[in-house]
Amino acid sequence: MSVSLRNDAEKIINTAISAVKPDTAVKKALTKIIPELNGSGRIILIAVGKASWQMANAANDLLKERISVGAVITKHGHSLGQIGELEIYEAGHPVPDENSFRATDRVIELVSGLNAEDSVLFLVSGGGSALFEKPMIPAQELKDITDQLLGCGADIREINTIRKRLSAVKGGKFARLCSPAKVYSVILSDIIGDPLDMIASGPAHPDSSTSAQAIGIVEKYGLSVSEKAMALIKTETPKELPFVETFIAGNVVQLCEAAAKKAEELGYETQILTSCLSCTARDAGVFLANIARQYRETDHSLAFICGGETVVKLTGNGLGGRNQELALAAADGISGLCNAALFSVGSDGTDGPTDAAGGYVDGDTKSALLERNIDIYSVLEQNDSYHALERAGGLIFTGPTGTNVNDLNVLLIKV
Amino acid sequence: MSVSLRNDAEKIINTAISAVKPDTAVKKALTKIIPELNGSGRIILIAVGKASWQMANAANDLLKERISVGAVITKHGHSLGQIGELEIYEAGHPVPDENSFRATDRVIELVSGLNAEDSVLFLVSGGGSALFEKPMIPAQELKDITDQLLGCGADIREINTIRKRLSAVKGGKFARLCSPAKVYSVILSDIIGDPLDMIASGPAHPDSSTSAQAIGIVEKYGLSVSEKAMALIKTETPKELPFVETFIAGNVVQLCEAAAKKAEELGYETQILTSCLSCTARDAGVFLANIARQYRETDHSLAFICGGETVVKLTGNGLGGRNQELALAAADGISGLCNAALFSVGSDGTDGPTDAAGGYVDGDTKSALLERNIDIYSVLEQNDSYHALERAGGLIFTGPTGTNVNDLNVLLIKV
Repeated sequence: MSVSLRNDAEKIINTAISAVKPDTAVKKALTKIIPELNGSGRIILIAVGKASWQMANAANDLLKERISVGAVITKHGHSLGQIGELEIYEAGHPVPDENSFRATDRVIELVSGLNAEDSVLFLVSGGGSALFEKPMIPAQELKDITDQLLGCGADIREINTIRKRLSAVKGGKFARLCSPAKVYSVILSDIIGDPLDMIASGPAHPDSSTSAQAIGIVEKYGLSVSEKAMALIKTETPKELPFVETFIAGNVVQLCEAAAKKAEELGYETQILTSCLSCTARDAGVFLANIARQYRETDHSLAFICGGETVVKLTGNGLGGRNQELALAAADGISGLCNAALFSVGSDGTDGPTDAAGGYVDGDTKSALLERNIDIYSVLEQNDSYHALERAGGLIFTGPTGTNVNDLNVLLIKV
Repeated sequence: MSVSLRNDAEKIINTAISAVKPDTAVKKALTKIIPELNGSGRIILIAVGKASWQMANAANDLLKERISVGAVITKHGHSLGQIGELEIYEAGHPVPDENSFRATDRVIELVSGLNAEDSVLFLVSGGGSALFEKPMIPAQELKDITDQLLGCGADIREINTIRKRLSAVKGGKFARLCSPAKVYSVILSDIIGDPLDMIASGPAHPDSSTSAQAIGIVEKYGLSVSEKAMALIKTETPKELPFVETFIAGNVVQLCEAAAKKAEELGYETQILTSCLSCTARDAGVFLANIARQYRETDHSLAFICGGETVVKLTGNGLGGRNQELALAAADGISGLCNAALFSVGSDGTDGPTDAAGGYVDGDTKSALLERNIDIYSVLEQNDSYHALERAGGLIFTGPTGTNVNDLNVLLIKV
């Protein structure tokens, strides 16, 4: 294994993930928001999503007693303790539970009766759709309608169009509850392309779907819904929320840009090929290895950077994750290139059901595996990349990072 | 459809394929070879492979009566008529037949008894392994040994290691038969990476496999071989052929470089990502579309160029080819990008079992298909890219080009 390339990989990974950690992201957004905060009004802090504890903690560090009241709703087991005077709630994910509904009720109370001098600092991360939810019909009926939609083959866009109308907070309705206060929506994006009306179901973003579309979906599938549900479906969601200001505090683009900046510092001429990689993990690895061969005789160091979320085709029942599979799939193509390495990591630090964040391979990996009688293609067929990379010293460990802005994939060519 | 992008695509395709046509390739190589040819010696022209007629015809145009004797061995139906005084043979491909053996016998006669003043102009293209073959054991025994090797799971490298030793011309042995004449080996490469000992089984290239390896293969699989075959297996192939000069007259690298040059002339800033693309066609298309989205706001026109040979996973029984499938798979990802187009063509002009050379898609293709109720993913599952592209005006036709140096895949972003 190339020690020099492996060291560079570790440095790039650490720097890139640090740049999109919840605390870094919140602090970066707050440097823009704090000068805008009205000195005379109250500040209400609301944090929802799997990274909400870390985001709230970072905001509390900076704002401290300027925060009047606040609440955090994170996933069961994700609270790391008290934060100042904030109320901390844990709730169900990926399926909302009674805790989700009760905590959301409490958040609605906290933002009720605000005036135009007040500010709501709304910190949003992935998982918010389940954790931050208050149905306006009985939970059982919501489940029944969802089951009907799934059963008749409705797509995710159709399901969301209906569900936003049955919720008290989704589809921009939370922001409207805060009115006339100013809302600062700070988002750690876990969806490629940052579709603001989809992240946490867009509590503070104008909804692009219409009630006419929602009615069309009910008719298309002949859904059976109560009178109350139908009245909600006919009610328009907010189309303009001028008092909301949105900050994408962390996303895969920033993950890639931070990796690129670090690679440049390390002497690589750097190119971000894409920050919306979406093909299969295996073929992404092969494609990047094909690029490595093209540049094997380069006279200056190069870094090709991708970000996104690849897909694993399950053909076996081994242990691995999409990042480990992508890396291992590149090992054959870069075999023998003494100057090339490729690594792939999940920004959350947990790749698939493993304790590794991802995988690293270089020109020596294939021969190291062959010495141990491990055939790359058999391993990939078994989806068992973890054990192969473990034997080749190619696992990357970061521990859980507390953030999630998808994956980083990097090809390094060093001269 | 974007007329401007489509026009650029056509221009790039025409220029790139023209650059690697057999006649262009041979003429380019001969400009280097002619000054070296010894005026006092004889010139023997030998052309083998599927493009041998075109290659020989081009050489004859330039050298005419300077050629003393010569022979062409092409595939059945591929001769386009008499060329000067050359002997033209047609033979079996992909399985050699009696014609292959007889024609190869005649070629061996033509290069026998040459002296150091003489030159052999040896023009090689894909298909040469079957067309240019003379087993040194009975054909039936050769078939039996090959069947044994296939039956016990030997890989292509092992099979070739044995077969080269049983042939009178493979593995550098043809060049040795020409000795002491000078051999100019002009190659139109149909294998990615130009492995000279594999193209047409390397008749004029030092063999990298050893008889020790060949004996090891016989022992490993317990092959049953005659005494004569075993004696041949124990005989070393040529390891040095200093009197051979090799010219890669056309390959996928040149296909890519010609495409890049034309794209630059058309105003695109151009990058060759790889000339050894080997992943699945579908994922290559998705990856290139992911790159298109990254650069959708570029302020100058960009061309990303790949070359190679992708793989199609058969999941249906529709009509298509790897180039059409690659293009169609990109249509979803670039949908709505008014400035992006992607095309993929086979340099031979026939993609899969179709009359099209490949496919073209741009930001309008998906909506054009949706208007006709055609879903891209259903079509890909059926491997029916031909019919979908036909409806979207996305088929590329060049007609058979007479050459084969793999495929060209290009992403254009025009501002």
